[in-house]
Amino acid sequence: MSPADRNDPTSLFKAAQAGDRVSLARLLSLVERGGAPSRVTAVLAYQAKLTAYTVGITGAPGAGKSTLVDQLIAIARASDQVGVLAIDPSSPFSGGAILGDRVRMQNHALDDGVFIRSMATRGQLGGLAVAVPDAVRVLSAAGFPMVLIETVGVGQQEVSIASAADTTVVVVNPGWGDSIQANKAGLMEIADLFVINKADRPGAPETRRDLEQMLDLTDLDDLDGWRPPVVETVASAGDGCDQLWDAVGRHRAHLTERGLLDERRRRRLEREFRQILVARVEQRIDSSQFGEVLAEVTKALAAGDIDPYEAADRMLIDIANHEARIDDDSSA
Amino acid sequence: MSPADRNDPTSLFKAAQAGDRVSLARLLSLVERGGAPSRVTAVLAYQAKLTAYTVGITGAPGAGKSTLVDQLIAIARASDQVGVLAIDPSSPFSGGAILGDRVRMQNHALDDGVFIRSMATRGQLGGLAVAVPDAVRVLSAAGFPMVLIETVGVGQQEVSIASAADTTVVVVNPGWGDSIQANKAGLMEIADLFVINKADRPGAPETRRDLEQMLDLTDLDDLDGWRPPVVETVASAGDGCDQLWDAVGRHRAHLTERGLLDERRRRRLEREFRQILVARVEQRIDSSQFGEVLAEVTKALAAGDIDPYEAADRMLIDIANHEARIDDDSSA
Repeated sequence: MSPADRNDPTSLFKAAQAGDRVSLARLLSLVERGGAPSRVTAVLAYQAKLTAYTVGITGAPGAGKSTLVDQLIAIARASDQVGVLAIDPSSPFSGGAILGDRVRMQNHALDDGVFIRSMATRGQLGGLAVAVPDAVRVLSAAGFPMVLIETVGVGQQEVSIASAADTTVVVVNPGWGDSIQANKAGLMEIADLFVINKADRPGAPETRRDLEQMLDLTDLDDLDGWRPPVVETVASAGDGCDQLWDAVGRHRAHLTERGLLDERRRRRLEREFRQILVARVEQRIDSSQFGEVLAEVTKALAAGDIDPYEAADRMLIDIANHEARIDDDSSA
Repeated sequence: MSPADRNDPTSLFKAAQAGDRVSLARLLSLVERGGAPSRVTAVLAYQAKLTAYTVGITGAPGAGKSTLVDQLIAIARASDQVGVLAIDPSSPFSGGAILGDRVRMQNHALDDGVFIRSMATRGQLGGLAVAVPDAVRVLSAAGFPMVLIETVGVGQQEVSIASAADTTVVVVNPGWGDSIQANKAGLMEIADLFVINKADRPGAPETRRDLEQMLDLTDLDDLDGWRPPVVETVASAGDGCDQLWDAVGRHRAHLTERGLLDERRRRRLEREFRQILVARVEQRIDSSQFGEVLAEVTKALAAGDIDPYEAADRMLIDIANHEARIDDDSSA
């Protein structure tokens, strides 16, 4: 096999599908960076369809997510090749966690059946909400039937990334009762499984009780008939990790047997498409044509002369016309 | 004065301007909740123009932001009435910090010249990126010349909120050198001042050295000629807080004397207007008219039959036509 042209997505994609890890890494860089090559890559990955199963692992900093992911890689690897995306929330404050993750995950560096990649991007059109699912599709096309997505961070964006998985695992620690109480709605929205990690510390029974009470009060019909199990782990010692992986398998079986997996993926695709759509609008606003208009509107806003909502509606019509003209050009 | 109609923004706004705190609280709830009343409120607040100076305080959880804010309220209060917005990042994981903040800030609960408000919203059109500046304008119109914005959280969204201030203070702790190294670009983008809080702990000199080295390598022209000072505090004991407030004052004078404040506010208004604009587009996508189209597109995407970018461009044209029709209706 001749080495793939490192700037041509189509050639890289073919090589990655044939098992070339260097081409795969390069493709993921293109996805991360955005622009035209990332778009070509995305289209190829869409055509290849999604076959991989994705498991998201999310939780606040310090919850022990990366140690847990490390254990899950080893367990999943026994049956499958495993791709891992460790997502940097593009925040000025990572607490150094990303660096730590990379170091820890080097445990698997010599195993060609494990591919680990950190991602952080603002360049990609639509941001991480588009780049992460694109990266998952690329890993899937490259032959990874299992992809783990670890999100380092706790903001809304990271949660939406974590929930872009088939099964989402929320990691908490003993003593987080207040936090759980305060965030019931958000937790129930994304969690298919709860893990109480560091369960050897004081307060694990109370945290379990808080979670179970929350689940008792939730209508299972809202959760597609699945009551999220609560698993206790001590990831640093490997305790409970097999049980966690079994629970992931049970959730997967639940989704598959009831035809819920396709429905979930359909909803995700819809969200993703909307992200692309909004990003295209933002591109148009950024185009030189609107710079002057934007400056005038801003001046009038500062002077208190205009209603920002009316001004937005007027500018949307301008953008609409701009789009219509682009359409005319391309069909001419 | 007759009590304001609690559902009429115009009546509430007048009452809030006359000093009625209950009406002010109610107005901020409208802003937080979104919808038509929030839009009316926003327009009134825009008309009143922004006179308040805003100071943002941001940093990772546990940095001691709320203790610091507590001290700054007391110092600022000596000369001005102070409004405080404590922003909940709408995250499923707050670590209980918001509750703690509320309790701590009750120190000022009996002082009518201090108004503290926690905000968390997904309901508002454009999210917190629109709601927070609207809330600042409302506080300004209600006669608060100083508004502090504390963002509890570390994601991109929270940082963009914190940077929506005239002066932005980034709070770090001793020992955060790795984190600072890893996030230079993001920090320099938002910080007008650095605070090393808990400076009595080991590692403060090293953290200062890391920050100063980072600043040494930054072109001051990129920072409008202002080198962000590094102030050490032990907020729990009040140490260094006066010096911090003096530094805020020096930054304010720097912006004012060089005419940079207006330019900063103009850029913020432009960002805000773009948020409103994109949110309007999202509203249109959500309208019933596009439900069926979206379902078809999603199906074709799942089958790998279409290019998501081409599909987005086609749908933008549909949305454009939809917008044009709305325009026709309203002008008929």
